[in-house]
Amino acid sequence: IVKREVVRVVTPGLVTDTDTLEPKENNYLLAIAAEDDVYGIAHIDITTGEFRVTQVQGLTQVESELGSLRPREILFADGDASVDVRKKLAGVIDGMMLNLLPDWVFEIEYAADQLTTFFGVSGLQSFGCQDLPHAQEAASAVLYYLQQTQKDELRHIRPLQTYHTRQFMVLDDATRRNLELTATLQEGKKRGSLLGVLDRTVTAMGGRMLRHWIHYPLVDQQQILKRQQAVAQLVDDSLQRIELIEALDGVYDLERLNSKIAMASANAKDVAALRTSLQRLPRIDDQLLVFAGGEYLKELRAKIDLLPELVDLLEKAIVDDPPFVLRDGGIIRDGYNEELDELRSISRDGKSWIARLEQEERERTDIPTLKVKYNKVFGYFIEVTNKNLDRIPEDYQRKQTLSNAERFITPKLKEYESKVLGAEEKLVELEYNLFQQVRLQTAAEGRRIQQSADALAALDALMALADLAHDRNYNRPTIDDSGVLNIEAGRHPVVEGMPLKEAFVPNDVELDNEKNQLLIITGPNMAGKSTYMRQVALITLMAQIGSFVPAENAHIGVVDRIFTRVGASDNLAKGESTFMVEMNETANILRHATDKSLVILDEIGRGTSTFDGVSIAWAVAEYLHDNPAVAAKTLFATHYHELTDLALTRERVKNYNIAVKEWNDQIIFLRKIVTGGASRSYGIQVGRLAGLPDPVIKRAKEILQNLEAGEFGKSGEPRLGESRNKPKKQPSSQLSLFNTDADDVIRT
Amino acid sequence: IVKREVVRVVTPGLVTDTDTLEPKENNYLLAIAAEDDVYGIAHIDITTGEFRVTQVQGLTQVESELGSLRPREILFADGDASVDVRKKLAGVIDGMMLNLLPDWVFEIEYAADQLTTFFGVSGLQSFGCQDLPHAQEAASAVLYYLQQTQKDELRHIRPLQTYHTRQFMVLDDATRRNLELTATLQEGKKRGSLLGVLDRTVTAMGGRMLRHWIHYPLVDQQQILKRQQAVAQLVDDSLQRIELIEALDGVYDLERLNSKIAMASANAKDVAALRTSLQRLPRIDDQLLVFAGGEYLKELRAKIDLLPELVDLLEKAIVDDPPFVLRDGGIIRDGYNEELDELRSISRDGKSWIARLEQEERERTDIPTLKVKYNKVFGYFIEVTNKNLDRIPEDYQRKQTLSNAERFITPKLKEYESKVLGAEEKLVELEYNLFQQVRLQTAAEGRRIQQSADALAALDALMALADLAHDRNYNRPTIDDSGVLNIEAGRHPVVEGMPLKEAFVPNDVELDNEKNQLLIITGPNMAGKSTYMRQVALITLMAQIGSFVPAENAHIGVVDRIFTRVGASDNLAKGESTFMVEMNETANILRHATDKSLVILDEIGRGTSTFDGVSIAWAVAEYLHDNPAVAAKTLFATHYHELTDLALTRERVKNYNIAVKEWNDQIIFLRKIVTGGASRSYGIQVGRLAGLPDPVIKRAKEILQNLEAGEFGKSGEPRLGESRNKPKKQPSSQLSLFNTDADDVIRT
Repeated sequence: IVKREVVRVVTPGLVTDTDTLEPKENNYLLAIAAEDDVYGIAHIDITTGEFRVTQVQGLTQVESELGSLRPREILFADGDASVDVRKKLAGVIDGMMLNLLPDWVFEIEYAADQLTTFFGVSGLQSFGCQDLPHAQEAASAVLYYLQQTQKDELRHIRPLQTYHTRQFMVLDDATRRNLELTATLQEGKKRGSLLGVLDRTVTAMGGRMLRHWIHYPLVDQQQILKRQQAVAQLVDDSLQRIELIEALDGVYDLERLNSKIAMASANAKDVAALRTSLQRLPRIDDQLLVFAGGEYLKELRAKIDLLPELVDLLEKAIVDDPPFVLRDGGIIRDGYNEELDELRSISRDGKSWIARLEQEERERTDIPTLKVKYNKVFGYFIEVTNKNLDRIPEDYQRKQTLSNAERFITPKLKEYESKVLGAEEKLVELEYNLFQQVRLQTAAEGRRIQQSADALAALDALMALADLAHDRNYNRPTIDDSGVLNIEAGRHPVVEGMPLKEAFVPNDVELDNEKNQLLIITGPNMAGKSTYMRQVALITLMAQIGSFVPAENAHIGVVDRIFTRVGASDNLAKGESTFMVEMNETANILRHATDKSLVILDEIGRGTSTFDGVSIAWAVAEYLHDNPAVAAKTLFATHYHELTDLALTRERVKNYNIAVKEWNDQIIFLRKIVTGGASRSYGIQVGRLAGLPDPVIKRAKEILQNLEAGEFGKSGEPRLGESRNKPKKQPSSQLSLFNTDADDVIRT
Repeated sequence: IVKREVVRVVTPGLVTDTDTLEPKENNYLLAIAAEDDVYGIAHIDITTGEFRVTQVQGLTQVESELGSLRPREILFADGDASVDVRKKLAGVIDGMMLNLLPDWVFEIEYAADQLTTFFGVSGLQSFGCQDLPHAQEAASAVLYYLQQTQKDELRHIRPLQTYHTRQFMVLDDATRRNLELTATLQEGKKRGSLLGVLDRTVTAMGGRMLRHWIHYPLVDQQQILKRQQAVAQLVDDSLQRIELIEALDGVYDLERLNSKIAMASANAKDVAALRTSLQRLPRIDDQLLVFAGGEYLKELRAKIDLLPELVDLLEKAIVDDPPFVLRDGGIIRDGYNEELDELRSISRDGKSWIARLEQEERERTDIPTLKVKYNKVFGYFIEVTNKNLDRIPEDYQRKQTLSNAERFITPKLKEYESKVLGAEEKLVELEYNLFQQVRLQTAAEGRRIQQSADALAALDALMALADLAHDRNYNRPTIDDSGVLNIEAGRHPVVEGMPLKEAFVPNDVELDNEKNQLLIITGPNMAGKSTYMRQVALITLMAQIGSFVPAENAHIGVVDRIFTRVGASDNLAKGESTFMVEMNETANILRHATDKSLVILDEIGRGTSTFDGVSIAWAVAEYLHDNPAVAAKTLFATHYHELTDLALTRERVKNYNIAVKEWNDQIIFLRKIVTGGASRSYGIQVGRLAGLPDPVIKRAKEILQNLEAGEFGKSGEPRLGESRNKPKKQPSSQLSLFNTDADDVIRT
């Protein structure tokens, strides 16, 4: 087989060869227009035609957008103004391709003019960005770049959509990563992330839609309820839902097929895939009828365009299973075009004539091994082995000599050959032209296909949420603006599905702005503090994308933003220590949180000495409590048991701990959150679980005894003193501060 | 343009389309044969033909190999035996494609037979794996899989190489990641890693070789010195080195080109790239003559095969800049083949004849707008616009009617056409066949090309090391088996090159097994403890790959293994807390370190309560000191200032700290390691640097004063008490334990 390559230079943001892209991820090209800390951000996925724009204030918001969109390529103005912005964004845009466009492309007059011309509108009101000059500039830059690189293949670009980041919950990049929304922290994989659990979509467009929802949770109560209602309908009617999922399952990526067809890079297989997909629409439409009582599903059904004429055309024109290659024929169905049918019949007859000829010539020459063969250089010829050469007739013309045979042609053979081969050549050309026509006719329906694709994507995402909710016994949360976060028997959506040895233990949370604003959470290592806190954040986020949640009951007052300070690794390349990263993130929280925010703080102060750490953790907690501007609902996990004293002086601070049970010098994790502070951390027991050698464990216990015996120097350092060669038997009771009776452990 | 696609299903380990692969990374398919905790590991890169095998004891070693090779696809036996292994490796092999082969493929009789047959040898002695049954089984599995999937395109597979992990420094996967050898921790990028600094290679094969060296540092003193000497020669002669680099710069990826040619997937551009590369060899060979005094470079020069006959053939046969596509001609140079030249002349004459015809017909018919045109359906024809139709001669035969013109043919035109078109078709076919012949002749020299490629790869890697050493003032370390690690004025190779605000401050280290075995390193946050420790590890590693090192002087006693316990993030998916991960890694170190190892411990015990943490850290340090089996040279950074007391009772423990200077309540980092322990951590000052709001900073200081005033409860928790509304002025002297005079700060 010969491999044919087409040389095409594409930049990362302009990849149209969808085979090399993740089906369930978008591939964005993004432009940033900046002036006076206001930024226009436009992004496009040319494989789906989606083209959106926003305008934001402050670089943090730009970083957040870059974090959720993860573009492959970014456009900036070439001028000095953008140098500073690029420098500040260096850490975020590292690894994305940058392109600098002339400054004038970003000028507002040019931008507005370019947008109205391209979309053929008189003003930008219909796009909603008439008052957002930098948004227009960014969009213009995207269009300019496309026009420079893609020439005229831009018919599939969809009308510009303006969105506003205030319509969505704010998630900074650290939080997106810490909560493992779409990728795990350690390996960057979808499996093990929230999306990994939620994504039961069966189409690529549904997958992209769900990913988008997770990155942009809603804050408008009505919008949340609208989605939630649709999910509820689909949860309730499992039979219908399963039917619908089955119907959707065969639908290909309409968005990308549509773009390929518009850009004329679609082959016959693509067009056939579109046909297969469209053929499924009536069944989906039918099944949606059941849910017509609900606003959102009704809306989606209305948007699905069945395109019967197009389906009819494709069924008549294209064979069932066309080949990839366009130039070898076999694409157009018999009966679609008269001329084509005629040429096909000539070609077929010709071939059988030649087969007959072989028989005739064998009889005429009496050479039973005579063969009529074909190759590309000589066309048809007659081959006779050397020992039969004496028998060849006079009208044979010698053409080629092989070692053991000779090849001949006859005028009759050549005449017929030219007829057959001519027909085949014309046939292929005609098929190709006919296919191009069908493709053009299909492309003309692009807008209608796109509309159906939009509806199917949302439907698929809703069904994914519903299917999961049903299988995992999620419940419908109450959504309002009460400022309350009450969760009963909540579970971590990812961890509960892991194949772990122990069953997942559900836990409650009660947070509000009046009595339970700041929860100090203590408890030993491994008890599950991090899991618990992330679970609260994830349940809140899921509720705000319209999903059901893994909890028996949930009352979610809409949250404007989730902050997390969880773990950290240092960034030597930036010259920042682990502790510096931790303090940076903490400062960001204290400066931007509001009383509508949810804050997750894990082990603040861990990266420094004990006294410094305690002092900082204490002061941060007080600030979150005392300063009304940042009185965010907060979960504050710490190993500094000193912090439990805060509840004595601060009314909205409550202490919780995760219960454990001590048993024969082992610890059993009960995974249950209970009120009150913990007094021990069981670090040494965990060390043993992890396989520290026995002498190390023994010696650590001995040192711990010394410490607990209160041998301190004047500046607070314990005097560790000498090893006690024979550990006293007596202190063993001192080691077990907890009673071994579980009922006593869970002190409420 | 019509896009032609070739449908080919390839698994991740079998990608041969090198355009989709990283040029400087290998793409491995790997097989594991397991029995009784002994493992055979075979891996192959089919794009380079490299095929290697080893046999190891214990899963940790398997994990280490997987960590350095990062295969895309793994083969296991289908039987029950492998289930357990796969389960234990789950975390490591997640994301790699697994394939289960029949059990009998892994049987030793089959394996040995298959290997000897494939390589056409009578025994496996020449490969060095005759006594390693599991290695043979793994290699056999790889071959079996290739034969099932690749059919007969296996001529380029190179003879099996056996390697032994004991020939290399052991690096576990955590250490590879913590030291950021080939990718950064945070973003997984090459830029910012050790490889990012070292990789000045100019060829893809050199890049792969250098990556391999970094993952497999040497432990044999002679081998290290051999490489080091070659680097030294290249450092010393900069003029010659630069010439050599220039000469190498135009060499393409000979390994992958060679494989493509062997697998017949090479196009004419590939063959031309091979030619260009080979043409550079004489220059390289010449320039290497200067270095003939050195053993390694002399050896490499001897391995470079100039292949003059092949270069001659390629120069004569292939045009300067051939097209990608093989079937459109234009590949073979004029003069290479008589028949081809003849066909080309017919084709050219035909075209000019047709051009002349247009002129003649215009004159004959007196229609100045008459045109001779061509299309694929009708071939050549004469087009006459409607208003001139009355002037057409009788011999014109009407062929097609357009809206404003008619198209005609004449017998003369058709006769000539068939001659021209026939010639062109034959021409293309002949060119294709000739190219195939050239490709076959080239493939026949595969072994010799491979040998040159090997030599060039090593040469490139050596030059990269030399070039860097020269530019960055690295020095040649002394290598021996003394067990000493003495570094004077060492720098962190990555951090020193970062565009940071302050100049990098070099530091010494003195480690040995007699007096300075365990260094306790204290000092405030951000002072650079982590950078310092990693720098010691990286300098050691660089020395053992044969590189010069960023230090004024270095005396490196060969190290068998580097262990690191640096930072960590939790792994919720595995149900492991941050602290558990930390303890696991620590246990691994205590169980496997020897007195030849280098151990880096950063903040052991951080993830638990203070008392537990101190106890564990203390016990771990004692164990490393006291237990002769694990008396590894250790750098032990900690915030527990209590640990500095260890030096009082343990003779090989020394205290160091990283100096800072306090100035107007600010801290200035001096970045200098000095003897003695630190007493403060300056966490609050770092908090201010990071932007914590002022009230938080003030309050934290107040709490710190309370703590330092020694208000402790009976179990060691400080009583934080009430806020002092007016912070006393007096304790400010207490805050600055360091004198503000820098000379005093550096207490030695």
